[in-house]
Amino acid sequence: MSTSDAPALDPTAPIADLTAAIVDIESVSGNERALADAIEQTLLHRAPHLEVLRDGDTVIARTDRGLPQRVLLAGHLDTVPLAGNLPSRRRVREGREELWGRGSCDMKGGVAVLLALAVEADAAPMDLTWIFYDHEEVAAADNSLTRLAAERPKLLEADFAILGEPTSAGVEGGCKGTMKLEVTARGIAAHSARDWVGDNAIHHLAPVLERLAAYEARRAVIDGLEYRECLNAVAISGGIAGNVIPDRASATLNYRFAPDTSVEQAEAHVREVLAGLDLDIEVTDAAPGALPGLDTAPARAFLAALGADVPVAAKQGWTDVSRFAALGTPAVNFGPGDPLLAHTDDEHVPVADLEAALAGLRRFLAPSAPATTLDA
Amino acid sequence: MSTSDAPALDPTAPIADLTAAIVDIESVSGNERALADAIEQTLLHRAPHLEVLRDGDTVIARTDRGLPQRVLLAGHLDTVPLAGNLPSRRRVREGREELWGRGSCDMKGGVAVLLALAVEADAAPMDLTWIFYDHEEVAAADNSLTRLAAERPKLLEADFAILGEPTSAGVEGGCKGTMKLEVTARGIAAHSARDWVGDNAIHHLAPVLERLAAYEARRAVIDGLEYRECLNAVAISGGIAGNVIPDRASATLNYRFAPDTSVEQAEAHVREVLAGLDLDIEVTDAAPGALPGLDTAPARAFLAALGADVPVAAKQGWTDVSRFAALGTPAVNFGPGDPLLAHTDDEHVPVADLEAALAGLRRFLAPSAPATTLDA
Repeated sequence: MSTSDAPALDPTAPIADLTAAIVDIESVSGNERALADAIEQTLLHRAPHLEVLRDGDTVIARTDRGLPQRVLLAGHLDTVPLAGNLPSRRRVREGREELWGRGSCDMKGGVAVLLALAVEADAAPMDLTWIFYDHEEVAAADNSLTRLAAERPKLLEADFAILGEPTSAGVEGGCKGTMKLEVTARGIAAHSARDWVGDNAIHHLAPVLERLAAYEARRAVIDGLEYRECLNAVAISGGIAGNVIPDRASATLNYRFAPDTSVEQAEAHVREVLAGLDLDIEVTDAAPGALPGLDTAPARAFLAALGADVPVAAKQGWTDVSRFAALGTPAVNFGPGDPLLAHTDDEHVPVADLEAALAGLRRFLAPSAPATTLDA
Repeated sequence: MSTSDAPALDPTAPIADLTAAIVDIESVSGNERALADAIEQTLLHRAPHLEVLRDGDTVIARTDRGLPQRVLLAGHLDTVPLAGNLPSRRRVREGREELWGRGSCDMKGGVAVLLALAVEADAAPMDLTWIFYDHEEVAAADNSLTRLAAERPKLLEADFAILGEPTSAGVEGGCKGTMKLEVTARGIAAHSARDWVGDNAIHHLAPVLERLAAYEARRAVIDGLEYRECLNAVAISGGIAGNVIPDRASATLNYRFAPDTSVEQAEAHVREVLAGLDLDIEVTDAAPGALPGLDTAPARAFLAALGADVPVAAKQGWTDVSRFAALGTPAVNFGPGDPLLAHTDDEHVPVADLEAALAGLRRFLAPSAPATTLDA
């Protein structure tokens, strides 16, 4: 247990204030320590009903009241790199109050909601596991849930899981899979004043970019939810010196595939798209999607607590919902913020979303809710 | 004047040994100091007939005997980056003795020949200026001759100039111009799982690479010499993070144009090649070519000293011959090494080339040569 001073965060502050405080602790992937410290201190000082564990820059907090059901609620602490969008700002646009800044949408709004409820929900009708984890916005292999699943799998056991990823406070089922591939073209180096004795590797990437630019992505409808696939170059590099024809150039491709497609099928598809080109193709990262699990009993109970007005859709972005699906745990995405704004320079979250997500989860965790709801 | 110890180089050693010693002093652009020090010390200790000046990492050595003609002989000290090709190695291939290693061809063989003759030629029939300079293999603006021309133009004055760039010990007239352009495509950043709300800037480079790959370069014949143009992407970059559609991607283009084309015409041509594409195009570096000056009197005298068997061709690579052409000084390229090997991983120089270049220049600078040859 820590001997640190008072926690840095006030979990009982208005939810927009708590979110702003969390956004303003910069935590680009790899730099989550300060935020993890603040979360840990807050829980240690303000949530005596929880057992608080620290694993690297992941904070786990649990009740253990011997209740028949356990629900896991999780959110990641890290963000993509900054784009001049810190510190956060409050603003009003078209009559709507918003919080703007890197991570406000993906997913510090969700982290704030989870933190507030972790402190508040000391008498929920089920046991609760709260996980605040690091390294989500990077290679799946570096994600702390990968380590936890391998080293401390008991901590991830639950009957139902809710991930606080942005869904505009609606429910998004399942998620697409994701794969990264390194595509490398080879050539022959030469002086750039005598290119006829060389072979320009950068020019060999022309048909790769052409095919990506012309690519028509599949739209898969599963359980009534539409998953739109995406295939993109997310990085490209090549060049030795300003007067050298380069003998090597490469592009990093990211394929987001519908959850009815396996990792193996996804790789075969990308290789088919690039068929006939003289390239080295290597898969460097892959994670399967998750089929929507909305017809399971715990998911139906959660939907009932939220009410009939809450929209239900497909999750387009890969989320750790797929890890729980792989463990056999029904899991949904539910959090404040428009997922279309994630990773953009104009990332922001409506204050109304923060309040709606907080209110919805509060109903689900309220002591008055009968524990048997989960068996409905 | 330096108080340093004995010079690091033996200018009277066999020319292949002297070249190897110079190759083994690594001098990738920006790291020329150690080699400049060695050259300076060698001249200070072994060439009392020369005035030795130091300007940054450039070494200038001059006679001032009041002779009616002055010939300038120059070579650059720097190389392109290493490719695992240091230290140098001697080898025999197909019965031919070679020295292999970064810079052996471009242009430390020429530097060795110039250094040996600077020490030896103390009674030439003309005054001599020797220049060993830095930063040739980078942007023209960083080339030390740019600084010398601006700040100490008197040092560059001459009636004829010989650059020791690799020509296989033949004479290469003029040189092509060179231009670098930064070509940037813009898009809209988004999460890579939802590409339909973004616009991938990397994909916008597809038509740029397509046009470069399909480009048919002009061959210009001037004064009987053929200059082959080249247009290439020498670098490409783009990408923010592995799960972000990038809003910016760029390529560095290098255009090598025939000496009948001005810098302005060259820029207009590249813009025409890329016409209709939504790109930012910026010229970041440019240097004009030089028309062949072989019909001038000093050039004819030099050719006569070399003999009728010496091949004469167009210079494909941009060289500082164009700086002298711009000052009105006839200038030729003449040095050991096959220019096709410059910048390649297998860079090497035949020992026979070193000896031929040394012998040819020695005849031109011999005391027995009548000074009036230059007026032939």
